[in-house]
Order: sequence, then C-alpha cells, then structure tokens
Amino acid sequence: LERFNANIVEFARETKNLGQEDPRRIIHSLKVGLAITLISLFYYFEPLYDGFGVSAMWAVMTVVSVFELSVGATLSRGVNRAVATFLSATLAFGAHHLAVLSGEESEPVFIGLFVFLIAGMVTFARFFPRMKERYDYGLLIFILTFCLISVSGYRDDEVLDMVYSRISTIVIGGLTAVIVCVGICPVWAGDDLSKLVAANIEKLGVFLEGFGVEVFRLSGEGESRKAASLQGFESIIDTITEEESLANFARWEPGHGPFRIRLPWKQYLKIGSLTRECDCRIESLNGYLSYGIQTPPEIGGKIQELSTKMSTESGKALKELDLAIRTTTAPSSAGIYIIKSKNATENIKSLFNSTLSKDTPPQEIVLATTVISLLVDVVSCTEKIAESVYV
Amino acid sequence: LERFNANIVEFARETKNLGQEDPRRIIHSLKVGLAITLISLFYYFEPLYDGFGVSAMWAVMTVVSVFELSVGATLSRGVNRAVATFLSATLAFGAHHLAVLSGEESEPVFIGLFVFLIAGMVTFARFFPRMKERYDYGLLIFILTFCLISVSGYRDDEVLDMVYSRISTIVIGGLTAVIVCVGICPVWAGDDLSKLVAANIEKLGVFLEGFGVEVFRLSGEGESRKAASLQGFESIIDTITEEESLANFARWEPGHGPFRIRLPWKQYLKIGSLTRECDCRIESLNGYLSYGIQTPPEIGGKIQELSTKMSTESGKALKELDLAIRTTTAPSSAGIYIIKSKNATENIKSLFNSTLSKDTPPQEIVLATTVISLLVDVVSCTEKIAESVYV
Repeated sequence: LERFNANIVEFARETKNLGQEDPRRIIHSLKVGLAITLISLFYYFEPLYDGFGVSAMWAVMTVVSVFELSVGATLSRGVNRAVATFLSATLAFGAHHLAVLSGEESEPVFIGLFVFLIAGMVTFARFFPRMKERYDYGLLIFILTFCLISVSGYRDDEVLDMVYSRISTIVIGGLTAVIVCVGICPVWAGDDLSKLVAANIEKLGVFLEGFGVEVFRLSGEGESRKAASLQGFESIIDTITEEESLANFARWEPGHGPFRIRLPWKQYLKIGSLTRECDCRIESLNGYLSYGIQTPPEIGGKIQELSTKMSTESGKALKELDLAIRTTTAPSSAGIYIIKSKNATENIKSLFNSTLSKDTPPQEIVLATTVISLLVDVVSCTEKIAESVYV
Repeated sequence: LERFNANIVEFARETKNLGQEDPRRIIHSLKVGLAITLISLFYYFEPLYDGFGVSAMWAVMTVVSVFELSVGATLSRGVNRAVATFLSATLAFGAHHLAVLSGEESEPVFIGLFVFLIAGMVTFARFFPRMKERYDYGLLIFILTFCLISVSGYRDDEVLDMVYSRISTIVIGGLTAVIVCVGICPVWAGDDLSKLVAANIEKLGVFLEGFGVEVFRLSGEGESRKAASLQGFESIIDTITEEESLANFARWEPGHGPFRIRLPWKQYLKIGSLTRECDCRIESLNGYLSYGIQTPPEIGGKIQELSTKMSTESGKALKELDLAIRTTTAPSSAGIYIIKSKNATENIKSLFNSTLSKDTPPQEIVLATTVISLLVDVVSCTEKIAESVYV
C-alpha cells in the first residue's frame, strides 16, 4: 500500500511538472474537451439524417483525430482529411456505379478488384518521401473512404446520400476543430520552431562564453566555478526530430503575428542544421575541458587572451542571433562580435606562425593547438549561422 | 504536353527506384490490398448484425489504420486499438448508465460533463512522454470510443449490443491485419534496426580506412584517388529519427529468427548513440582533409605510419563489428584490431613527448596535432562501441 501511495505521489508530481513546464498543454486538453463536447451535444440534440449513429460518428471522429496541439498540425490533418474524403468518395461512387452496371453476378468481383488495386496503389504512394511528409494522413483516409463507400452494397442513390452525409459531417467536424484550435489561445508550430532554433543557438552561445573564460585558466584557480557555468551544456542533436516535425507543421500555417508572410521554415531548418554542425565541434571541445591544458609560459598569456576572445565573442554573437530570432528583428551587433572573433582568429594564426617557430617545446602545445583549431572551426560555423539569420 | 510527358517519365522512374530500392514495399502494398479486400468481401457477403454499414465499417477501418510495414508497428497499433476499445467501451457503458439513471432532463448535462472530463484528461495523458511513446494511438482510440458510445443516446441494451459489435469487429479486423502481416513475408522492425545500426558503423569504418591512407599522404601524390574512397562519407546524424521509431516498434515484436529471446533494442539504441558520437569526431576530421597537412620531415614517416595504423585498424574493427551485428555472431577479430590501434595511439603519444621536444618548428605540426587528437578520440569511441556490441 505504501508503494501504491508513493506511485500516486510520483504521478501527481509528474502531472504538475508537465503542466507547469508548458501551461499550453492544460489549455489544449481543455480545448479538445470543449470541441468534442460541442460536437457531441450538437448531434445529441439534432439527430440529422435518418441514422443518428453513422452521421454523428464521422463528425466526432473527425474532431478527435484532427485536433492537434499546434494550428499547423490541425490544419494539415483537417485539409488532408477533407480533400481526401472528397476525392475518394467521388472515385468510389464511380467505381460502385461501374460495378453495378456490370451486372449482379460480377459485381463483387469488380468491387474486390477495385478495392485491391486502389488499396495497393495508394499504400505504395505512401512510400514516396514527398507524399509521406505532407499527405500521409490524407492517403490513409483516401483508402478508408474508398473501401467504405464502394463496399457499402447500397443502391446508387443511397450511395450518393452516404457520400453527401460523410463529406458534410467531416467538414462540420473539421471546422469545429480548426475554429476552437485557432480561436482560443492558438499554438503556432512556427513560433515553437523559432523558439527551439533560438534556444539551441543560445545554448551554444552560453557554452562558448563560459568556455572562453575557463579553458586556459591557470589550473587550481577557482576550480569550483567551472561546474556552474558549463554543466548546463548538453547535446542538441536530439532536437532534430522535433525540429523537423515542427517545420512540417509550420508550412501549413498562414502568416500571423510578427510574420506578415508565411514563416520561412526552410530557413529555420538550415539554421538548425548549421547549429548542429557547430554543436559537433563544441562537443569535441567539451571533451578537452577535463584536461589541464598547458601553454608555453612566454606566450601563454597571449594565447589565453586571444582564444578567450575568440570563444567569448563567438558566444556573444550567437546570443545576439538568438535574441534576433526570438524577437524577429535584425540582429544589431552580432556582426561586430563576429568581426572581433575573426580578428582574434587571424592574430592567433600569425602568433603561431611567428612566435612559436623559435624554441617552444612542442609537446606543451599539443592540446592547446587542438582546442584552438576547433575554436577556429566554431568561429567559422558561427559566421555561417549569422549569414543564414541575416538572409 | 512535353512537360507533362517528362513528368510522367520522371514519376515512372521514381516509382521503379522506390520498388527496386526495397522490394518489400511492393509486397507490403499487395499485402494491404489483400487484407482489405478479404475483410471487405467477408462483410459484403455476410452482412452480420442488423445494420451492415456500421459493423463492417469498424473492421475495414481497423485493417486500414492498423496495417503498417513492420510486424512491430502492426502489433503495436493492433493491441493498442483492441485494448483501448475494450477499456473505453466498458467505461462508456458505465457513464451512459449513470447518465440515464439521473433522469431524462439531466442526462445530456451528465453526458456532456463526462465527455468533457474524459476527453480533456486523456488528451493531457498523451503529453506524458512514456504514454506518448507507446500508447499514443491507444489513447486516441480511447477518447473516440468513449465519445461514440456515451453520446449514442440509445437504450442500455442497445448500447451493450453496440459495444459487443464494435469490439468483435475490431478484433476480427485486427487479427486479419496481423495474420496477413506476419504470415506473408513479414518485415521485422528489429531486423531493420540492426541493419541500420550496422550500416552506420560500416560507413564510419569505410571512412576511417580510407582516411588512414589519405590524410598524411605526401601532397600531389595521387590527388584524384581521394575523391573515390572518401566521397561516400555523409553524416549519419539524420538517421536518429528512423532509429528511434524502429526501436519503438521492435519492442513490440516477439523473438524470431536468430534471436530466440526478444531483440535487445535498448542495446541497439546505445550503440547507435555511441556511433553518432564517433561520427561527430569524424566529421571534424573530414574537414581537415582539404588542407595539405604538413609533418616535420624527420619524424613525418613515423607519424604517418602510426596515424595511418590508428585510423585503418579502427576502421577494420568497426567493419568487423558491423559484420557481427549483421550476422548476430560474436565479433571474431575486432578485439585484435582495437588493441592494435590502441598500441598505435600509445606509440604516437610517446613519440610526441620524446622526439618532438627537441627542435621541430611547431607551426608545422599544428594541423597534424589536431588530426591526431581527434583520431585518439575516435579510437576510444570505437572501443566503447565494441564494448557495447560484446555485451
């Protein structure tokens, strides 16, 4: 019993966390409840057509399966469902008519053949990457509607009635879902996408700023501070799945808020992939934090100064870009930071080519060299990200 | 018209490619066609219960929405759908009974309230990561069934009939889908997962073998060969989405083929994430291929020999692991390759610490140092991957 109580407490805590983390989840749940209750009671009080069950069912089913968290996802599913039902119902009516014309005996043969062909072909179409990305749900509904209508075995005029009631209930259900979704605290996938991309850039920026301060620090000096500023870094590779699905929904959303035109979701995907490229270098850098990195004493100060500059200025530039994406304004001073970090890069290169050539013992600079080469890569990645943001 | 023709040709070419790339796609399409035709004709000839449309519809809908490419996906959706329908129908019958008991007037109020509560709560439950991963489809079906049954507005015994016919048709549809899916050329998600993980390891192995030969090659010598062996390298980060969804399906599959017990999909995910870590280092390495890397002439030969060894031996070890995963046998000689490449690592470290300390001009080894540090990381990643495979 105690264990059961502990489970209950754990569950309550998790529920609270989920709600606090993103209150839109609670609002979304209420919205779904509202939309379904509306459509259910509408049909409860107004049993349209002859059979209550069948017609109302389509409307309820449409609301349940179309309503998603973001506007883009809801629109994408709603449009897919409506268009697929319309096209498929038309085709199925034709097929049914043909089968009936062929005579009583061969009717089931024809219908079986049609169903087999359409189901097989449309299933295969779902493998086309472009279809899968945008119209997967529509293709599923296409098969479903075609089978239901062509197999129904009714007379022609009954089939027409069925087609009409299916399409109208689906349109009613779809509109209910879309109106509730957009009308009450809408959640835009595009906004989430830009926030996610910005947050990833910010993470890299924070790391780089911290890294610049810490990496060439004399060992022993303030060891405990390291934990605080750099622990927060974690890989951002895993966000690729979320980014792609958000971009996929964002393409369905009309312009809103700061974007008069549609969100440039392709640009966001490009920025995202550049960010991950940069993250890859930074993860390698992160591995070197645990080593105590030696520098030759005579130029140690100079190296430290320049590489700190490279890292922190890149970090500042990234944070500036993060802000620019969040507020959808032109980044004001990111360019300056990038120029500064590129200058530091040039200086450190010439420092290596001139000063070091004399008589520094090379084994002392093995790690420093690696770190600096990676930093040079990071600076050039940062520049590429900035270019994509400015476009 | 010409453009239309060109489009048709392009479409036909793409279709052929899709089919040739993976003939299981064609077989899958035929299987779906077969299953749907079977279930359609079964209901066409045997109009069970009173209303043909409603009952048959559930069976057809179940086949269409449950049948997926892999056995795991089909089982997961089938079980989700059947269990959710059963639980939800039971609950809905109770709710309907309560609402009817409360009297004619308050009935719609109670039903509206129940629908709102259940729809809202279950929608919220879909946000729990553990639920979303495994039971998302089931939760959707739960809401759907609950609404359909509690809103139906029938008398109690009619509702019981409805519950019974829904569950039985869904079981019939689900079984048809599962039997056709498993019975005819089954596609196991677990097999695909292990192939994907193995292919990624192989890609890294091929790159490392090529890299070892190329990177410290004297410049100018056989420049054209580089393209051939290294062009094939492309990032494997993008496969993370596919890997996760395959693992998610594989957990539903029973033991089959070489695995008497269930596939250790968690282990595969771990290997996959280690592979990506290694890939990250290798991508950084790939960036240095375009530079002409200088080595101090007096130890250049030694460095070249050792780093080539590190790279090619790691490459061989990875290819061995790839083979071991594909054939699900213990890797025979991967351990030897790894020991060899670790020895090379030790040698190169001591080479740097001893020989270089004298009078080599350091700017000459800046890039070489970076490349070697990254190689050291790659070797240790390889070792970790090998450890996971051996487990």
